[in-house]
Formats: sequence, structure tokens, C-alpha cells
Amino acid sequence: MNDLTVSPAADAALAPAAPEFADILAAAARIAPHAHATPVLRSRAIDELAGCELHFKCENLQRGGAFKFRGACNAVFALSDEDAARGIVTQSSGNHGGAIALAARLRGTTATVVAPHNTPQVKLAAIRAYGARIVPCEPLQSSRDAVTAQVLADTGGVLVHPFNDPKVIAGQGTATLELLGHAPQLDAVIAPVSGGGLLSGTAIAAHGVDPAIEVYGAEPQGARDAHDSLREGRRITGRTPDTICDGLRAELGTLTFPILSRHVREILLVDDAQVIAAMRLIWERMKLVVEPSGAVPLAVVLAQRERFAGRRVGLIVSGGNVDLGLASAWFADAS
Amino acid sequence: MNDLTVSPAADAALAPAAPEFADILAAAARIAPHAHATPVLRSRAIDELAGCELHFKCENLQRGGAFKFRGACNAVFALSDEDAARGIVTQSSGNHGGAIALAARLRGTTATVVAPHNTPQVKLAAIRAYGARIVPCEPLQSSRDAVTAQVLADTGGVLVHPFNDPKVIAGQGTATLELLGHAPQLDAVIAPVSGGGLLSGTAIAAHGVDPAIEVYGAEPQGARDAHDSLREGRRITGRTPDTICDGLRAELGTLTFPILSRHVREILLVDDAQVIAAMRLIWERMKLVVEPSGAVPLAVVLAQRERFAGRRVGLIVSGGNVDLGLASAWFADAS
Repeated sequence: MNDLTVSPAADAALAPAAPEFADILAAAARIAPHAHATPVLRSRAIDELAGCELHFKCENLQRGGAFKFRGACNAVFALSDEDAARGIVTQSSGNHGGAIALAARLRGTTATVVAPHNTPQVKLAAIRAYGARIVPCEPLQSSRDAVTAQVLADTGGVLVHPFNDPKVIAGQGTATLELLGHAPQLDAVIAPVSGGGLLSGTAIAAHGVDPAIEVYGAEPQGARDAHDSLREGRRITGRTPDTICDGLRAELGTLTFPILSRHVREILLVDDAQVIAAMRLIWERMKLVVEPSGAVPLAVVLAQRERFAGRRVGLIVSGGNVDLGLASAWFADAS
Repeated sequence: MNDLTVSPAADAALAPAAPEFADILAAAARIAPHAHATPVLRSRAIDELAGCELHFKCENLQRGGAFKFRGACNAVFALSDEDAARGIVTQSSGNHGGAIALAARLRGTTATVVAPHNTPQVKLAAIRAYGARIVPCEPLQSSRDAVTAQVLADTGGVLVHPFNDPKVIAGQGTATLELLGHAPQLDAVIAPVSGGGLLSGTAIAAHGVDPAIEVYGAEPQGARDAHDSLREGRRITGRTPDTICDGLRAELGTLTFPILSRHVREILLVDDAQVIAAMRLIWERMKLVVEPSGAVPLAVVLAQRERFAGRRVGLIVSGGNVDLGLASAWFADAS
């Protein structure tokens, strides 16, 4: 996904400021009445396999089944009453749409989600179940942007972008704040990277607590734009992702790219087979349903044993919204 | 499963005394260094479906993937050093075998598990992984008992029965102690029933905290010996169970039957299709992997909405050890 409201030429002038640690503390207070403080779980068996000490921050147990509710809730509840009453507009083919729908309902306002017409029925059903209106578009970024702009013009609503928004980033960072409160003195924290909202919030939170913590992104080989962007020092866009990790197919935004460039030590890559193996481990050993995106951080640790050997590592398990039929087909194919 | 060491004629003379509430408090202190205090989770979506307030005690997140570790740990750590050094012997085709193997390893002694030769490989592998020796027998109670008696004679080991043992029952009760500490003022608690160790411990713990709490057993139609035993006032044995709930195929024991007769309001029945539907809800809505046995309490609530309408109900989610291939086949058949 690209920017919605800012044309490339206007980037420098209009780009909002990156959130700071204080914004994450404020977000934590703001969302506390609504969001779950999710558990941090451990597994001796997986620690033995990985050769290090892993702390799993279980955002699959968050409301709506993913970390996305944190950022959506913070952005929606930070609006003035007047702005909130205009209604919330966003574009999403996944967890952010459901999170915005839920946050809008809790705020007592309406939500409109622009979603590609090939969005899985189960995700559309979740968005509808929270009372949001769905406006279909073509599964192309240009169509998403055009339809979203039209909806904003028609409704006078307020846009809450899935990741290129300081309030959304600050909300996502609250997961790491809780993780570090529960498991202090971590050596490293690893979060999956897509548009970069979660990883940006993770990095700002971690370095606000302790600048020495190493922050890594975890990304599928088939959607490695963040890896290549950080390596080349410029934001790479326009590729067609190819991965089962349906939550990780977006591209870095104008706001998240500079944050990651400053804070993230490295983006580590794994292929889909490694993701499926890690996902299976979490299902079987930890008894947790996680979606492919949520298993990428563990896949990275298992692929890079030397780097993390003997260290204390926090993993953001980003979500658990997965079709059980699809998951069993992946497991069957892999075995 | 029947008694191992006590012939029917000697029941009255040799039957050990039922544990009391104080034994559960002692068990909680004894196992605290080894067992997880598992989370109590909730789901707004399932509450809405059920029409009541449900508190899920997640023993699928216990060590070894099931509540069984509580009882095994209490029994093994209650032994004198001298007795423990003799080695632990048990019979099991499931979670109790793994739990005893783990508890024995933690105590620094050996374990021997008598298991039918048709025990699933995955469960045998778990028992072996914890370092226990497996002695095969025929899948008949008479063969289990004969081989177990032989192993006891050969090794001089100490028997820890899967459920007909006061220390095991007291250990299982610690889950309900934690549940009621986390979710006080429950109106009812529901646990699955097989040999009755978990339900006995649940009942003694619940009524030790508050005699007004209604305690229910949840049982599959295809293994309804506990339901019929309580209704007829005598322990029914010798039936062949037919249910996918592989953890619930044992029969009540001489120790557990009178405890349940005194404490349990009713055993509620559901069929396997209802169990699969409840299991699917927990996987999809709560992102938790539970085995069929662990979903029976929720299935009971959904089948008896009037009984539990508007009330605060605790459910013991007994375990999460399930073959992912089997589970996906059940889900596919049901949809």
C-alpha cells in the first residue's frame, strides 16, 4: 500500500512528524480501557530448539485477533468529538479494517472500509460484524486510493491510514511497552514488517525503554521490499509480493521508512516453508493459533541460531486470523 | 480404566481417603515451583453466542499441554525421597503418561509408563522425550492391569494412578483454585469427566471456596458412564466408549465416584458434532488450540443456554494435545 493523501512531491512539506516515546506512553493510557493487555508466553521446548530465551507477546489474543486494534483504537480515540462524528474512513483488505470498525463502534461513530473485491469473505464478515460499511474497489493500489479519496470527499470522513499515521504507530508501540514491562532486560525484539507501522512503534518503544535493545524486522523473502529499501537507502515500491503471509504484502510508507532506517538493526528474511514450520511449532507446542505473519519472527530466530544464541529475545506474535482450512492445507503440503 | 491395586472386595478396607480442601491448598504450594499458573481468558464473541459470562481456565497452556501435570507433579513431589528413588510406574495412553514422565524427571527419578501398543505415536514420542521407559500392553484394561502389576513387581516402583489417587485429585483441584482467585464469585464451574480425577478436584476446590458454586461435569454421549453412574447411584463399568474425545474414555474410579456423587449437581451430555463445533469456536475466536476433551464444557454451555443464561461460569479447558491433521479432518467433515 502507498500513501493515500500525500503525493510524492508534497512528501517533505506535508509528512506528519514521527511519534516519540511520550506518544506511546500516551497511547497506552488512551487505549487501556478498550484493548487487552495480552499475555507474554514462553515455551521451554521452543527455547531448546532455538537455543535462546524467547518471550512471545501474544497479539493473536488481542481484540479483533491482531495488534491492529491498538493503533486503530489510539487514532480513533485521539480524535476530537467533532472529528470523530464525521466518521472514520480507511482502506484495508485485512485486520486493520476490522480494527477500525471495532474502534469506531466503541467511539460511537461510523466507519467505512474500502476493500478490494477479492478480500476473503471471512475478513469482510468480521468488518461487517463490527458494523462498518464496506466499499469495494479493484485489487490495485491506484483503485484503492481513488475509491478512498472519493469516499472521503463524499462523506467528509476522517482518514485513518493503516500504518503511515503517527497515532497508529504510537498505538502499535504499546505492545512492546507491555512486553518490556513483563520481560525486562531483553537483548532483542523482533516484529514482522509490512507497511512498517508495527515495527516503527516497536522500535520507538524499545529504544525509549533501553537504547541498547536490538530491534529487528522479520520479512518473507517474497515481500522483501523493506529489507531492500533499508539496504539501498531508498523506499522501494511497485513490486508484486508473493508470499502466504497475507498481512505482510504492503510497502513501507513515507513516515515509517525513515523511522526504520534510524532504529532497526536489520531486516531478516525467511521463505514461506520456514514460516509454515514456525507456525506449526507455535500451534503444536504453545497451543496458540497464529497466522503466517505472526510466525515470521520465530522463523527468523530458527533460521539465525548463531545470532540469537543464548540471548533474551522478545517476539511480537502479530495476529491469529487464519482460515483453518488454508492452514491445514499448508501443514499437509509441508509434511 | 479400573483400579489397579485394589480388588473390588477390598474396596472398603483399602480405599484411600478423599482429599479435602486443605490438601488442594497444600498441592498448590507443592507444585508452584514447577507448574504454570495458566491464564484465564475470555471472549466477548463467545459470551454473546452463549448468552452468559464465560471464564476459560486454559490448561492447554499447562506444561505438557494438559492439566494432568498438576496431579502428577503433586503425587510425585509428595513422595518421600526413599519412595521417589524407587521410580514411578503408571499406565496411560495419553496425557497422564507424559505428565508423569516430566514430573519424574523434575524429581530426579525414573518413570515407566504402561501403554497400549496402539497408542498414537505422537503421545509415545512425548513420553519418551521426557525420558520415561514405555512398556507396551494390549489395549484392554485386563492387560493394562496385568502388565502394570508385573512392572511394579519387577521394579519395586511406586504406582501413581491417573485419577484414583488423593494426591492426583488434589493436584487437579489447583486449577480451580487459580480460576476462582482470578474470577471470583462464579455461579458455576464445568469440567470434563473421564475417570473423575479432574472433576473431583474441581468440585472439592470450588466448594472449599464457596459451597454455593454449582459444579457440573461435561461428558460425551458416547462415553456417558459418569452420567449414568450418578443417575443410577452405582459405578457403571465395562462399556466400550465411542467418542472422538480420546481423553474422556476412562471410567469413574472407586475414589472419584463417591466424591462426584456428593459434590456434582449434574453431568451434562453432548454429542461429538457439538464438541467439534465448540472446539472450532475456541480455535477461531480465542486463537487457542484445544483438544476435543477440552471443548466439552463449552459445548455443554452452548447446548444448555437456558440453564446458564446471564450467569458467570468457569470452564476448565483441560488440554490442547491434538493431531493437527485429525483436527482439520474433523472440521472439514463438519462443514
